[in-house]
Amino acid sequence: MEKRKLLIVSTSKVHGSAYMEYIKDEVKQHFEGCKKLLFIPFARPGGITHTDYTRKARSVFDELGIEVRGAHRFKSAEEACVWADGIFTGGGNTFVLLNELYHRGYIAPVYRAVKSGKPYMGSSAGSNIAGLSISTTNDMPIVYPPAFKALQLVPFNINPHYLDPVKGSSHMGETREQRISEFHFFNSQPVVGIREGTALRVYGNKISIYGDLSVRLFEKGKAPRELKPDADLSFLLEGEKEPKLPVKR
Amino acid sequence: MEKRKLLIVSTSKVHGSAYMEYIKDEVKQHFEGCKKLLFIPFARPGGITHTDYTRKARSVFDELGIEVRGAHRFKSAEEACVWADGIFTGGGNTFVLLNELYHRGYIAPVYRAVKSGKPYMGSSAGSNIAGLSISTTNDMPIVYPPAFKALQLVPFNINPHYLDPVKGSSHMGETREQRISEFHFFNSQPVVGIREGTALRVYGNKISIYGDLSVRLFEKGKAPRELKPDADLSFLLEGEKEPKLPVKR
Repeated sequence: MEKRKLLIVSTSKVHGSAYMEYIKDEVKQHFEGCKKLLFIPFARPGGITHTDYTRKARSVFDELGIEVRGAHRFKSAEEACVWADGIFTGGGNTFVLLNELYHRGYIAPVYRAVKSGKPYMGSSAGSNIAGLSISTTNDMPIVYPPAFKALQLVPFNINPHYLDPVKGSSHMGETREQRISEFHFFNSQPVVGIREGTALRVYGNKISIYGDLSVRLFEKGKAPRELKPDADLSFLLEGEKEPKLPVKR
Repeated sequence: MEKRKLLIVSTSKVHGSAYMEYIKDEVKQHFEGCKKLLFIPFARPGGITHTDYTRKARSVFDELGIEVRGAHRFKSAEEACVWADGIFTGGGNTFVLLNELYHRGYIAPVYRAVKSGKPYMGSSAGSNIAGLSISTTNDMPIVYPPAFKALQLVPFNINPHYLDPVKGSSHMGETREQRISEFHFFNSQPVVGIREGTALRVYGNKISIYGDLSVRLFEKGKAPRELKPDADLSFLLEGEKEPKLPVKR
């Protein structure tokens, strides 16, 4: 994955700011040289139409002079991923998103596009699916996808919207950290918790952090640790293997 | 389901109180006449062993003179459900729980036990699975179960640990209410949000509320509504059909 170029964004909006506004300079740089962007709207937050969601994404890329087409407008995933020179998957419900990616045959074509050097950006659910599986999503399982295995663009899992425990809460539901610790009873891959306003840049075999906050790394059998904004996270890619891509079902 | 007797509990603990302490009088009444209780420990919160979790459940029933055996100690689900004259499924991770229920063949035997009049109690994950599907769980999908269809002991879905929106929160993750509203883009059954400290009693074709708080009812295409502690929720059972039970996989 030497040509890999990923921007794994925790959230499309930070409080009090417009859609993708806070990160627009980074987005511009990430898609530099791109003319045609494939937008994957399948997570459809709030149940909006694929067309309306694509229109929202287009508002970000219009001023960058990048043409945006929604994935729902293509005859096939192959056609869409060949047409595009960059890919952006928007947030919403991760289960709905992954389910559509399977049924429309997007898993392998997106992987191949990324491997060939086409920049990929995900936000929220679109970031979660960049990891090995969706098993560390925060979303409600409102549809049943054919598998939890995801795009596997990086050899770890993502937890977007990472939230620190609320001090003094009397609610008995598990904290995010407890949930991820339970994930590690059944799974071995590391999990990177990305706080709102923060993103991971994965360029080839290098990983760095975008934003002013640290990310929280959870490894099986170890205490969680904070990685500061200037940290080098490239060690997470060591020993990376070519994933076995799930086939269309 | 005229003989059905369910106690669908939001949480095993309320803040500042011991395991099942706050609801023990109701539990005693619910299992009146029972001598042998099957405890289903498969959700294993915090990854504790099935044996340790069963020991915890036993601490509640010892003083009621009810013998408790863990489901993991039986050769088959049929044997376990025939042996028991009452069933209690503890909380933990709903995906882990449902996955084990499928692989160990528990779905149909538990349904039949309930239909024959054996009292069932669930707490948290154990309550979630009493509904049509686990699609309104709050848990992280740390394992991939063969389906999301659950025990279907009632013709609606349960959201335990129901949490009202946090006023003034700047976090961009969805509120519980938004999540359930998105559930209704893809599913038609009602969802009952049960706050901590609250439970549903389902006796035959009658449903009443245990506790001092109202429950929140979400119906597709309607505004959510609050049902006060003295409300009669039996209308949720109208037109109930015999479910098609998933088979062991």
